Parts: sequence; structure tokens; C-alpha cells
Amino acid sequence: MKSWALLLEYDGTPYVGWQRQANGISVQAVLEEACARLNGGAPVAATAAGRTDAGVHAAGQVVQVALPDRYRPDQMRDALNFHLKPHPIVVVQDAPAAPGWSPRFDAIGRVYAYRILNRRARPALALNHAWHVERRLDEAAMAKAASMLLGRHDFTSFRASACQAKSPVRTLDSLDVARIGDTLTITTEARSFLHHQVRNMVGTLKLVGEGRWPAAQVRTALEARDRRAAGPTAPPDGLTLVNVSYAQDPFGVRT
Amino acid sequence: MKSWALLLEYDGTPYVGWQRQANGISVQAVLEEACARLNGGAPVAATAAGRTDAGVHAAGQVVQVALPDRYRPDQMRDALNFHLKPHPIVVVQDAPAAPGWSPRFDAIGRVYAYRILNRRARPALALNHAWHVERRLDEAAMAKAASMLLGRHDFTSFRASACQAKSPVRTLDSLDVARIGDTLTITTEARSFLHHQVRNMVGTLKLVGEGRWPAAQVRTALEARDRRAAGPTAPPDGLTLVNVSYAQDPFGVRT
Repeated sequence: MKSWALLLEYDGTPYVGWQRQANGISVQAVLEEACARLNGGAPVAATAAGRTDAGVHAAGQVVQVALPDRYRPDQMRDALNFHLKPHPIVVVQDAPAAPGWSPRFDAIGRVYAYRILNRRARPALALNHAWHVERRLDEAAMAKAASMLLGRHDFTSFRASACQAKSPVRTLDSLDVARIGDTLTITTEARSFLHHQVRNMVGTLKLVGEGRWPAAQVRTALEARDRRAAGPTAPPDGLTLVNVSYAQDPFGVRT
Repeated sequence: MKSWALLLEYDGTPYVGWQRQANGISVQAVLEEACARLNGGAPVAATAAGRTDAGVHAAGQVVQVALPDRYRPDQMRDALNFHLKPHPIVVVQDAPAAPGWSPRFDAIGRVYAYRILNRRARPALALNHAWHVERRLDEAAMAKAASMLLGRHDFTSFRASACQAKSPVRTLDSLDVARIGDTLTITTEARSFLHHQVRNMVGTLKLVGEGRWPAAQVRTALEARDRRAAGPTAPPDGLTLVNVSYAQDPFGVRT
């Protein structure tokens, strides 16, 4: 068997999330089934860099699988994409992985983007790909509040109660708020995030954008180290895992 | 009755196009039915700035309808959006229109964007919203070829045989080719376009991008004034009507 790194794009709308679950079809299950077709039907385990929630999308998920050593790169990507049809899940790139390489533990950076459609009319083009917020958001206030979360902090206030990480301390490298027309995009980068951290930060920034919270209350929420001190969890639809980075990129130059 | 201008966004995937047809549901039919609900069930005729083809999307279609003079702006948009559910068609803005105003004949500019996903793997996130082209496209060659179509020309070579415009002469104000990663976006602006003109220009530029045509052959094709001299029609999925402009914008400042 040979270890492979896969760069995955998927529309999370129809899935229960990355991880296998009893209550529906997961991205992992669909991918593992496609891999099994290249393994004589025998089961294959796939590990992902980020365990995206139900409804969350990926443009740059990174996954590891082990498969029989009989495929060339590109050929394997094409074979997997054939078996993944008609699911909105594709392998964009593939590459042999070093022995012991883990997409999750070897990752040194993750980038997520969260899209808010800020207008009265519900989304048509961005259906299932944006959080629809009707009240006009003040993106400058949101950016100011966002800056208070940058750096190394105990993010307990922004962590799901189900989060299994040992430590609530994370280092937030960026949290940018940009508006183009009626679309706000919140982009954030860190080595790793706690469970629901991005959605909880977005749900909190939205309160600031609506004028319901002064920007400074975000710092108070952070310092409280209490989930109840921060805002609600933003819905999954707006979130996309954009990129995962490694000290040595398994895909070399990405196309 | 009072005349209204509506700014429409829609996902063209499930429709036979803007215009009513016998063979399926059109955007026009869905909108007219929603309007009829505000007119005591009596039929309402909707006129559009651009009669988008089946599968073509709109971010900024402009439409005129006449409705009973009993609605405030915004209130009418909300009522129409209520009746448009669950269709991926929404009224983004509404405004009273001057008597005799035509979204089609008073338009002084139209902007279309065409998206190509240029990679081996089929689209997952851009499903139904991009033309999937596997062979690597040379965007610089495409841009060079595109520049040969700028200005006032007889566009017979890029016009559908079914085109009903009296004159094949149009003035192309811009035709830009931009790449971000594996996505090429071709953006074009003119006062008006012939039927299939944008898709025929894109289908021709793709031949140049693939290296199957030298850039100069686009000028030859233009000068031939013969549909058979240009490339094939690009599929509709990648095309979006982005904006329609007027000497006096019916919506004032657009949000």
C-alpha cells in the first residue's frame, strides 16, 4: 500500500459533514467508498486536515488515504473522480505522501472564508453558500472587533461544548472583514481552530456589525472564557475551508 | 396601474431561459405569476433588459412590470420575494419607473461575465456555474485575441442564426480575460449584444487558449462575416448577466 495526499473540493450542502455519522451521508463515506473501488472493494480509511461540519464547504480540504501501489498520480485522481460521480466532491490534485505524513497533525495553517449576504432579498445565486443577514452590517466596526481576537488567547468563549481539543488556547493569525457590494467575506487563518470557533467568531462579529454590541464587548467576551459570553454560532452554509498549508506542501506547486 | 423597475438575481439552471416557452418553466413565467398575485390574479406582463438563454444566470437583470398603485417600494419587493419562493429568483431592488421607460430599449450598457473552470477535475463548488475546460488555457493569447474584437464591427460571425436583430453591427466596449488560480473570467461590456454573441466569442477565444487557433484567426473570423468562420457556442452555464446600465439609473444608488 502507498500513502497519498488528496486535495479535495466539495459542496457540503447534501452531507452530514466530513466525518462518518449514523444520521446521513458524509463526505468521508463517499470518498472512502470511491477509494474502496480502487482497492478491490476492501475498505480504505481517509483522514482529513479539517473535519468540516454539516453544510460546510471545502475548496482546499487535504486528505490522506492508503491505496495499492499501482496507480500513477493524475491517473488515480481521474479514477477517484470517476467513482465520485455524481457527488459534488472532486479530487483536484493528488500526490504521493511521505510515510507517516498526517494531513491533520502536519498542517501548519488553515484558512477559512465565511460569506454573509447582507441585503433584504434572500440569496438566489449564493443559495446554501452564504449566511443571509438582512440588517445592514457595519463592516468597519466588525473589523475593529475582529482585531481584538488576533494573537494567542484562550478561546473557551468561542469553543463548542462538544470540542475535544485538549487546550482552548489558539493563535489567530488573521481575521479580516471585507465588503464587496452586499457580500461580506470574513477570512481567517490559524495553525488550527477549535470546534465551531470560526462560526462562533462570525456569529459574535455579526452582533457588532448590527450595532447590538459595541466592538469592545468582543474583548470582554474573550476574557470571560465562558461560551455564554460570546455570540451565537453562525450557520454552516457560509463557511468554506479554503486552504491547508504544510511546511512541505505535498502537492508541490498548486495549480 | 403603476410602472416599476425591478433588479433581479436568479440561478438560471432550472429554467428554459428568461422568455416564456412551451417546453418548460421560464424566469419570466415565474416572475409574472408572482406579480399576478399582487394584481388580484390578473395577468401581468414582464419585460427584461436581456433575454437570457436557458441555463444562463443573472446577478443584475432589469425588468419592468405594471402593478396596481397600492404598494410602497421595498414593500413590493418583499411581497414579490414572498411569492417567488422557493424559486432561486429574487427581486434585489425595486423602484417606480418613469412612464414609457423600457428596461430593454433605454439600456445604454450591458455587462456579462463568463466563467471557465480550467482544470482536470470537474466542478464541485461551481457546478452549473462554469464551463469545464480541461486543457490548460493560455489566457495571455486569449486576451490578445479578445482585443481584436473591440470596437464597432459587423458581428455576423458571432451571431446565432436565429438572431432577430435588424443589424449585425455592434460596438464592443470591453472583452477582458482574467485568471485567478484555475478560474478564468471573461468580462464583456457593450450597449447591446447579438443573440449568442457572448457565448460565441467565448467559444472562439477558447480555441485560441487551447492553442488550436492563432490569436490572429479571430480577426479573420470576424472579417469573414460568416457564422461558420468562428468557433462553437460556449455552454450557457458559465454565463451571468452582471449589470445593465441606464443614462438615469432607475434604482438610484445600487446597494
